[in-house]
Amino acid sequence: SKSYRIVVLPGDGIGPEVIAQATRVLHLISDSSENLKLVLDPYDFGGCAIDKHGEPLPESTLKACQEADAILMGSVGGPKWGPERKVRPEQGLLALRKALGLYANVRPASFASESLLSYSPLRPEIAQGVNMIVIRELIGGLYFGPREEQGDGNTAFDTMIYSVAEVERITRVAAQIALTANPPSPIHSVDKANVLASSRLWRRVVTETLRKEYPQLVLDHQLVDSTAMLIVSNPRKLNGVILTENMFGDILSDETSVIPGSLGLLPSASLAGAPASPSNPSFKPSPGLYEPIHGSAPDIAGKGIANPVGTILSAAMLLRYSLGLEKQAQAVEAAVRKVLDDESVGGYGLRTADLGGNATTVELGDKVVEVL
Amino acid sequence: SKSYRIVVLPGDGIGPEVIAQATRVLHLISDSSENLKLVLDPYDFGGCAIDKHGEPLPESTLKACQEADAILMGSVGGPKWGPERKVRPEQGLLALRKALGLYANVRPASFASESLLSYSPLRPEIAQGVNMIVIRELIGGLYFGPREEQGDGNTAFDTMIYSVAEVERITRVAAQIALTANPPSPIHSVDKANVLASSRLWRRVVTETLRKEYPQLVLDHQLVDSTAMLIVSNPRKLNGVILTENMFGDILSDETSVIPGSLGLLPSASLAGAPASPSNPSFKPSPGLYEPIHGSAPDIAGKGIANPVGTILSAAMLLRYSLGLEKQAQAVEAAVRKVLDDESVGGYGLRTADLGGNATTVELGDKVVEVL
Ligand SMILES: CC(C)[C@H](C(=O)O)[C@@H](O)C(=O)O
Ligand SMILES: CC(C)[C@H](C(=O)O)[C@@H](O)C(=O)O
Repeated sequence: SKSYRIVVLPGDGIGPEVIAQATRVLHLISDSSENLKLVLDPYDFGGCAIDKHGEPLPESTLKACQEADAILMGSVGGPKWGPERKVRPEQGLLALRKALGLYANVRPASFASESLLSYSPLRPEIAQGVNMIVIRELIGGLYFGPREEQGDGNTAFDTMIYSVAEVERITRVAAQIALTANPPSPIHSVDKANVLASSRLWRRVVTETLRKEYPQLVLDHQLVDSTAMLIVSNPRKLNGVILTENMFGDILSDETSVIPGSLGLLPSASLAGAPASPSNPSFKPSPGLYEPIHGSAPDIAGKGIANPVGTILSAAMLLRYSLGLEKQAQAVEAAVRKVLDDESVGGYGLRTADLGGNATTVELGDKVVEVL
Repeated sequence: SKSYRIVVLPGDGIGPEVIAQATRVLHLISDSSENLKLVLDPYDFGGCAIDKHGEPLPESTLKACQEADAILMGSVGGPKWGPERKVRPEQGLLALRKALGLYANVRPASFASESLLSYSPLRPEIAQGVNMIVIRELIGGLYFGPREEQGDGNTAFDTMIYSVAEVERITRVAAQIALTANPPSPIHSVDKANVLASSRLWRRVVTETLRKEYPQLVLDHQLVDSTAMLIVSNPRKLNGVILTENMFGDILSDETSVIPGSLGLLPSASLAGAPASPSNPSFKPSPGLYEPIHGSAPDIAGKGIANPVGTILSAAMLLRYSLGLEKQAQAVEAAVRKVLDDESVGGYGLRTADLGGNATTVELGDKVVEVL
């Protein structure tokens, strides 16, 4: 019998509401299998931690995260802790990523169910069949390079810096994830090698690492500007794995995430190494951080109408990537699909407000639990 | 009687073909008005200049550009001068921008004609009425900051650096362009101030410059990641002027440019100061560079099927912004609209291959000249 410890960070705004539904799902999985135990522990993080402890990432929260098998987060931030404040929730998020060495951000963008195609801002014939996974380097580049406001505030700079080792390790994560598909996904590496020195290093190391260690994978290189075009004009061309550095990944993963229709539907994972998978026998768990991609949505917080699907699917990613529980992950995903699918294909067609429906957060959770 | 000297850089691939149609339009305007003379001089630039002179921006071309009233470019680059080459066409483009101090890149993204709505990858109800102008800082930031490949190629970095003066001057160009609309356009300033020091300087200087010098303009601040989302999910929210730094502008201007359906339709201007306009009485011409946003399209070069509209509309921007010939600019734009518009609204509905039609480059040019 195996026991796992999952730290839960509900956070701010709609965070606690969507987290409540995802933890129901995890509890159900724990209760319904004899040789598996998931222990869930909530901790303060983000704006609410600033209010209570004076900092977004209290020592106790960080320690719990470091000792956990995985972390499930809701969302952080809100108007109360705006840019004018010295201490802000996103500082906690950046510090947590760095402290746990979460260098690989994984963001799938595909349709959880065919019946959601009509919610895409793209024409259906363009959006149909989109199935991209953005893999973003998360603790290097402009986000953590040397920065300064100089000379009486007269100039300011940030540094986009990468080392060979940083590019190698994120390339390996991309390769491992590409290998979980059958046939393996192509890897589209995105940079600005026609202008930037760091991009030339990026391109060189990605090419060499894959050629040496994963020669079976198909690789192409894209420029970041034309990638931003392709995502809108012909996204299927980028199906597979999109591998890129931190700042480009921040922009492109958000751009891809609007294609499937609602931000409320999409999960994400931030990892400190390649995930558990059949192609990765040397997997050693190190705590990954799982969260929906949407924000804290202060405008609808407390109303009970937020879409919990992104958080529930994040819990599924947690089961798969950090705990190696592929079967359970698939069961959760299938249950979500059934709840979202139209009656015409045997589903319940449940829709929260972000998808123009009037199902509540709890109703969605109820139905997923029921189907499961 | 006024005489203007326009340097023409046909460049590579389809460049010479589309330029030929735009220069016909400029010659017609020159010939048909008694007190206006446009003198057009072609020079080598880009890949063809590498072949002939060993460098993409020969001394003679640079000198001619510096002495011109305006520059009209086709497009540069091609597989023959790929990333493996030491001397590449885009180096010429970056050097020309820097040498002429072209710090303001102006890229409108709107539908030249309502009848083009069906070519957008976005659903018509989302794309309809999109009318954005991206104003990108063009000779600062990551593109020109200190960069290095260090320590046996083990790390590499680029620097995103901005000074107060650089942000002030691009803000003033954005303000002048916002003022040409009636009512003045709102300005959406885009940065990553929640992470980057250079973005915090950017936000502060944009805010102070507009508050002091253009208090009548409406300003909001957007983060670059959520801007990348909005451009796809709700682009009308960004109607008006999108003001941003070089790297973000490279990505976002390309993203916006796929909304109007074909890259072949869109013009651009790169300026060394605020353009000529009624709100800018202190305008002193300094050579601006005008070019379509599409590339050299080697796959269709020489076939005579490229869309010349982007280049013809770039010539219209040249007339407006560098020569102050607003009336003539509008006449060209109206002629293009008439040629593109469906018969149902009194147009000719002429379409080149990029829009699924079979009109040739020359036929488009013929019709624009005829209407004009
Ligand atoms: C909140 C912010 C610092 C963060 C980032 O830029 O990484 C967010 O946009 C994200 O993508 O998770
Ligand atoms: C060719 C390249 C250097 C250039 C840039 O990145 O500025 C191009 O993408 C552009 O936007 O004009």
